[in-house]
Amino acid sequence: MAYQLLKEKRGIIFGALNADSIAWKVAELAYEEGATFTLTNTPVALRMGDTPRLAEKLNLPLIGADATNVDDLRNLFTQSMERLGGKIDFVLHSIGMSPNVRKGRHYSDLDYQMLEKTLDISAISFHKVLQVARQMDAINEWGSVVALSYVAAQRTFYGYNDMADAKALLESVARSFGYIYGMERKVRINTISQSPTITTAGSGVKGFGQLLDFAERMSPLGNATGEECAAYCVTLFSDLTRKVTMQNLYHDGGFSSMGMSLSALEQYGRGMECPGDKTDSQGDEHHYD
Amino acid sequence: MAYQLLKEKRGIIFGALNADSIAWKVAELAYEEGATFTLTNTPVALRMGDTPRLAEKLNLPLIGADATNVDDLRNLFTQSMERLGGKIDFVLHSIGMSPNVRKGRHYSDLDYQMLEKTLDISAISFHKVLQVARQMDAINEWGSVVALSYVAAQRTFYGYNDMADAKALLESVARSFGYIYGMERKVRINTISQSPTITTAGSGVKGFGQLLDFAERMSPLGNATGEECAAYCVTLFSDLTRKVTMQNLYHDGGFSSMGMSLSALEQYGRGMECPGDKTDSQGDEHHYD
Amino acid sequence: MAYQLLKEKRGIIFGALNADSIAWKVAELAYEEGATFTLTNTPVALRMGDTPRLAEKLNLPLIGADATNVDDLRNLFTQSMERLGGKIDFVLHSIGMSPNVRKGRHYSDLDYQMLEKTLDISAISFHKVLQVARQMDAINEWGSVVALSYVAAQRTFYGYNDMADAKALLESVARSFGYIYGMERKVRINTISQSPTITTAGSGVKGFGQLLDFAERMSPLGNATGEECAAYCVTLFSDLTRKVTMQNLYHDGGFSSMGMSLSALEQYGRGMECPGDKTDSQGDEHHYD
Amino acid sequence: MAYQLLKEKRGIIFGALNADSIAWKVAELAYEEGATFTLTNTPVALRMGDTPRLAEKLNLPLIGADATNVDDLRNLFTQSMERLGGKIDFVLHSIGMSPNVRKGRHYSDLDYQMLEKTLDISAISFHKVLQVARQMDAINEWGSVVALSYVAAQRTFYGYNDMADAKALLESVARSFGYIYGMERKVRINTISQSPTITTAGSGVKGFGQLLDFAERMSPLGNATGEECAAYCVTLFSDLTRKVTMQNLYHDGGFSSMGMSLSALEQYGRGMECPGDKTDSQGDEHHYD
Repeated sequence: MAYQLLKEKRGIIFGALNADSIAWKVAELAYEEGATFTLTNTPVALRMGDTPRLAEKLNLPLIGADATNVDDLRNLFTQSMERLGGKIDFVLHSIGMSPNVRKGRHYSDLDYQMLEKTLDISAISFHKVLQVARQMDAINEWGSVVALSYVAAQRTFYGYNDMADAKALLESVARSFGYIYGMERKVRINTISQSPTITTAGSGVKGFGQLLDFAERMSPLGNATGEECAAYCVTLFSDLTRKVTMQNLYHDGGFSSMGMSLSALEQYGRGMECPGDKTDSQGDEHHYD
Repeated sequence: MAYQLLKEKRGIIFGALNADSIAWKVAELAYEEGATFTLTNTPVALRMGDTPRLAEKLNLPLIGADATNVDDLRNLFTQSMERLGGKIDFVLHSIGMSPNVRKGRHYSDLDYQMLEKTLDISAISFHKVLQVARQMDAINEWGSVVALSYVAAQRTFYGYNDMADAKALLESVARSFGYIYGMERKVRINTISQSPTITTAGSGVKGFGQLLDFAERMSPLGNATGEECAAYCVTLFSDLTRKVTMQNLYHDGGFSSMGMSLSALEQYGRGMECPGDKTDSQGDEHHYD
Repeated sequence: MAYQLLKEKRGIIFGALNADSIAWKVAELAYEEGATFTLTNTPVALRMGDTPRLAEKLNLPLIGADATNVDDLRNLFTQSMERLGGKIDFVLHSIGMSPNVRKGRHYSDLDYQMLEKTLDISAISFHKVLQVARQMDAINEWGSVVALSYVAAQRTFYGYNDMADAKALLESVARSFGYIYGMERKVRINTISQSPTITTAGSGVKGFGQLLDFAERMSPLGNATGEECAAYCVTLFSDLTRKVTMQNLYHDGGFSSMGMSLSALEQYGRGMECPGDKTDSQGDEHHYD
Repeated sequence: MAYQLLKEKRGIIFGALNADSIAWKVAELAYEEGATFTLTNTPVALRMGDTPRLAEKLNLPLIGADATNVDDLRNLFTQSMERLGGKIDFVLHSIGMSPNVRKGRHYSDLDYQMLEKTLDISAISFHKVLQVARQMDAINEWGSVVALSYVAAQRTFYGYNDMADAKALLESVARSFGYIYGMERKVRINTISQSPTITTAGSGVKGFGQLLDFAERMSPLGNATGEECAAYCVTLFSDLTRKVTMQNLYHDGGFSSMGMSLSALEQYGRGMECPGDKTDSQGDEHHYD
């Protein structure tokens, strides 16, 4: 099903850690659709993850860059333009990490230096990418930039912790910078609010299996997979969506517009009637992470 | 806890059917807070319900009116101004009914004459109240009009059927008319999006018990009661909220801003592990109402 | 730039009145992208408009149908499946009309029979299309249905009148039916909230030229054209957006996410300093339409 | 118009710099309504501003605290409880500052250390207040916490710069912490999205006069004043709004629900027809701040 939607387009893809990563699947599909692009990740991730393998397979440049480091980003854009042979047409930002989540800090007991890191890595890095690109005039007119987000930016999910705040900040950056970059250079900037997806990043969240089941049953079309997200990204990078900007686009099988489905309510109702221990549910609330 | 927040204010309250009705509780509290007002309902509801008892108890005018009938509404405003001794300061619209729900018609098998009725009774009646009031110049400057809504206007709830569409229309009318009435006469118009509440109206919805439990566990402060809704209405009728208009205000213990709570997820998780029959959940989907 | 995104797909397109219509442009592009489809409009529109010319040019079936008439719709789906050779993959609903706007009725002086017509033609017709399609099982799995909307469903625009309420209702129908049709048959249903566009429908709104200029200056990428809307529709009909459903998707150059742009503020500021007559601005408010 | 709505309630009010501050007006009205509370500000602000004068006038404790400093906040709560004689019932967070705005850094040329400061002062300080309060169990059950926000959190306003991102983060913190504090201690947390207001904070934004005029004409009830905001705060601190939490509440005369008013469109239209220099409007776009 290759349509050559991204023929002759040049891009940069952040965050393709391994074959489970959404960014990985975007890379594979963008390649099929005719794009050439740079793969990038932090030096540590390049050592630990499989990104080099992907770069080799697709025969594409691999450039290490810490997305929170402006100099690294400048180097990334410089080298990408050189090696791809021109300005950039699309960028995928798929970066998120919370030291507070990793260290098991409750949202009501955050370490503020860690929070600063969460925001810097997961949201401000997006501003840095855009600021560097614009200062270098590195993105072509009608270029398209996408960052991955989650509905926790709008509604509170148990266990998502300070990542919810980071995603809200990320989406705001997309709007704020989308205005400027759109006015000046016709570059569009959007976020995709994706279903919960089993990736290395997603699996760290507590109660993830139950949440996945709930989201699956709440979503009329079921949870969106990483492959499907890649397909959606391709449409946003293509020339067919040129006037979509500053939007947060739900790609979630309908979850965000659901209040309660029959299927989820039945599962829930079984829990109500279940003879199992009902006693501890409230008492645990303060162990929330 | 009477503050005299509505001292010397005159109002009209639609929909106080019986002691379970939110409008009933608003009437009681508005009375305590110093207001005088007219109680109104359809002639049928006046015969079937307890409204006359409430009017007697509070010694307030009771005026029959079908809110879908412009002549009835004109008479209601005329008589209310006469008997209360001046123009109106606040109006509560607590009216909603779906013949499709009553007759058990599935949302994908609606009777369109019934749908017309649902919309006329539950949403267009609100426009009629406002249009008649404005044409008669029956509401004082800085008057306040409130209609009751539900989050189904934004997100789909199994079983809420065409009432969801009616609430979306109702909220739109509040905005559209709020612009005009605000510009011209400083009248503010808002909707309150209330927790699911056990009333004669609410109890007709299928799976309501399970939904109530889910909403209770999802809402950090628990579901909002009718009494609490009455208190909130009083603040919106008072002079302390004069610049709030064209808003849909969630009064729901936090439900609308929740994606998933620990308490609801635990209940849900028990359903996943429960040995009970898991087979029929998907198969029943087409019996959705 | 034909990608064959809609190869082997069958569709129905409502509302291609003349070459200015968005539906017309969707038809032309869908054709280029490999789709076959039926064109449809009311019998009156077929006589007055240019739809027959388009059908002839593209050599596609033309079937008259009043979208508010369930029998007509049943005939439309039956004939479409026969003549296209199978079930339907995509539907475009581009239908809207307000007799109140046409007759110059102010929103605070609506004729309620006309309002009923506005809602029936512009919103309930969408439910009828979906209900008929589902009852006939006329849409393939993973089919895609799109209706055109406008941001007036969320925010009040002077002069848009009862069409705002109709669009709010339309978007609610998309959500409500999207749940059912998604769960049962994997059919996705979305609305596109399009920039103000110069069409026969759009040009009837008062102050439209000024609004167009304002929207153009507020939107970082400028107003979206009909051609661009067609391209966006094609992505939504394609297999690349299978998990997007129950969404209202802004296709507006960023307008919906803007509060105030420099360009619009400068234009506005000139109005403040302009020596011209400032006297009549408030006094006219009651002539609002 | 004192109702004694806050009788016997104890509070902490951040940000009452001078008589123009919204927090100042909240303090005056909360006092009238029967509350006792601590006034607080940074040591620098206490020297430069008029807060001491207000504390003296109302005979209330004045406690210096840098809201970004956890130790200061701990001391603030400790001393407040001691001097007010018990736990706290309400908190007002009215704190915001952007070094990038002050130094005239364009949003596409941010200094990232300054951005960190903007976020820390304007948003993370809110988390710190809540985290300290909760760890000390310093807020009574059914206590109410309010922070002031602006619609720039949802829509981009020329010149609002990184404060938009800070407000988006602030509103997310209100939701995230609102879940926890609500579940555990029935404390509600909301933000008020207030009209643009002429304060020391507001006046730094470029083109503010034009924006104020635009907002005034767009808002059916006109811009909300600081005094009106104070009245609204009082309702949120009172016992009448106990089930409102995790909400962003627009207090803006209807602005947020407006797309275009006749009054603003006429002003805008004059700018279109005005003979004045139209040439430079687009060219200046890159001087955007």
